[in-house]
Parts: sequence; C-alpha cells; structure tokens
Amino acid sequence: SAAVATADGSLCATDGIPIVRNISEITQDSFPIPGLSHITVAGALAHGFKEVEIWLETVAPGGGTPIHRHSCEEVFVVLKGSGTLYLASNSHLKYPGTPQEFPIFANSTFHIPVNDVHRVWNTNEHEGLHFLVVISRPPMKAFIYDDWSMPHSAAKLKFPLFWDEKCYHQAPPAKDEL
Amino acid sequence: SAAVATADGSLCATDGIPIVRNISEITQDSFPIPGLSHITVAGALAHGFKEVEIWLETVAPGGGTPIHRHSCEEVFVVLKGSGTLYLASNSHLKYPGTPQEFPIFANSTFHIPVNDVHRVWNTNEHEGLHFLVVISRPPMKAFIYDDWSMPHSAAKLKFPLFWDEKCYHQAPPAKDEL
Ligand SMILES: [Zn+2]
Ligand SMILES: [Zn+2]
Repeated sequence: SAAVATADGSLCATDGIPIVRNISEITQDSFPIPGLSHITVAGALAHGFKEVEIWLETVAPGGGTPIHRHSCEEVFVVLKGSGTLYLASNSHLKYPGTPQEFPIFANSTFHIPVNDVHRVWNTNEHEGLHFLVVISRPPMKAFIYDDWSMPHSAAKLKFPLFWDEKCYHQAPPAKDEL
Repeated sequence: SAAVATADGSLCATDGIPIVRNISEITQDSFPIPGLSHITVAGALAHGFKEVEIWLETVAPGGGTPIHRHSCEEVFVVLKGSGTLYLASNSHLKYPGTPQEFPIFANSTFHIPVNDVHRVWNTNEHEGLHFLVVISRPPMKAFIYDDWSMPHSAAKLKFPLFWDEKCYHQAPPAKDEL
C-alpha cells in the first residue's frame, strides 16, 4: 500500500510507489561509467513521475559523467566534495570545442543551459563528489560525445539511460486525475 | 556574465543567471509563514527556469507549511531533522478530511500525488527540519486551506507565492533555442 514507508524505491513501479521512502535503502546498481554511483530518487520509468526526475549521484576522485547534451532543463545541487563543470556553450558550431571550466563545491548549485554540451568531473583527489540532479521532461534522451571535437551530428543517443534499462519495457503507471 | 560564479541568485533574472551559484550566499527573505525559511535554488520567476523549480527550506520546531494543494508534481528530499507529512488523499470528497500521517526523516524522500491536500510539519521539538523541494511546471499555483474540513471549492489561490511576489511583474528571460 502507498501508505506504508518501505524501501521499495528501486522497483519499476507499475502500481504506484510508497509515499515516503528511505533513500539509504534504495538499491544502487552498477553501471558502465567508472566511478559513478547512481540512485534514482524519483524517476519516470522507475516510479511513474511524468514531469520531473531526481537522481542522487556520487562520483569517485578522477571520475565523472560522459560528455553529453540533452534538451531538458537540468539543475545540480552539490551536497559534498568539489569538482569541475566543463561546459561548451558554442552550440552554433559543428562541434562543442574547448569547454569553459567552472569550479563546483559543497552547497553550490549549477544549471546546464538547454542543449549545451557538458561533463561533471570530480577533480578533487581526496573525496567523493556528491550531488542531487533534477531534470525536466523525463526520461532523459542524452547524446554522448567521445570528445569535445566530435561533431554534434555524430553524438550517440543513449536511451534509455543505463539505470532505466531494466524498466524500459514496462509502461509508467496510469495516474488518477482530480 | 554567465561565466562568472557569483552570489547573484536572489535577483529576478531578466538577463540570464550565473551558471554556478553559492547557495550559502543567496538571500533568505522572511515571509508570513511562521518558522519557515526559504531559498529559491532554481526558480521560474526568480531565475527564468521553465520546467522545474527547486527550493531549500528550513522549518523550525512546531512550524511548517500551510495546508494546501497544487496540480504540479512535488518531490521532497529531507536533508536533516525529522517531522510529519500530513496527506489527505480523498480528493473525491468535498473537503480534505482527516489526513494520513507519515513520519519523514533525514535521507527520506517523499512525493505529493497531484492535487492531494497536504502539510509538512516539524514535529521534532529539538531541531530544524531541512529539505529540498522539487516542483514541475513552475511557478506554482497553490490553493490554501484554513483547516482540513474547509471545502476544496473554498481554498484560496495564493499566486504568486510569497517569495515570488517581488519578481512577479518581471517577465522571465527569453532563452535561445538550439
Ligand atoms: Zn546532463
Ligand atoms: Zn506542496
């Protein structure tokens, strides 16, 4: 029942999810991104959300996200650690080009302008980088680049994302409307 | 310039906002909700976001949100403290009625089903309740109830929300599309 707090949050929900969940008890899966640990706190494919999705991620020193872009809004809140945001804003060119570098740190927030190519990296050798990610219009359709000089047209669509692969063949639950 | 990290986040942005901001340096305003301290981390009226909005709120012991409902998705992530979610799911009745009570705690997440009437309260006498709130389709149009037996039709629209009042007469910034 939705009235009971459980640790059921890692399922592919087709029948609603508990109202309250303990994030510590949500399963962290492993994915082919070295050093990245990911929890879907609130997901479209995983939990039936339609308009927002929230992730909790930890990146080990020397690790980070692929170079990628997407057309949704994306906002980060850094909870712990520090690192670097690499952001290529020249979307009018044929390829991202050399990105700008922004220091990120605990209690900072940053956003990714729609369709800008970016990567978040833990450039701190000593501690993990922990952050929350909020995206709009889930599930995310991400285009991944091998490097900053790969043409936009050659970037590869990764859909569903790694953590959504197990849920992709299940439709999200229908919701009651008032 | 958007390339410089500044503490400029509390402005009503009409010309873009810095990519990285320090949440500690964003101004907390006071509002007529006793015990509630609010920071708009990423806002529609405040910063020009169109699809998601993120708040960081702290509620003093014995304080909380008004009883209210809204048609957007809303997800909470509790960072510190504990409290109670009051949630009335009987939206088919003419008034909310006695709500269910859910314990909430640090490292828990909870969501509010669309249009369900709810209140978040710090029922812990000893420490503040700190949480992040994510909403879809900002700015929020909230309907506020005096109590749980007030008819849905009598709930009062509060728009813009208290923290958006200073930005309401300024249009959000135009965004480039790729
Ligand atoms: Zn991204
Ligand atoms: Zn609410």
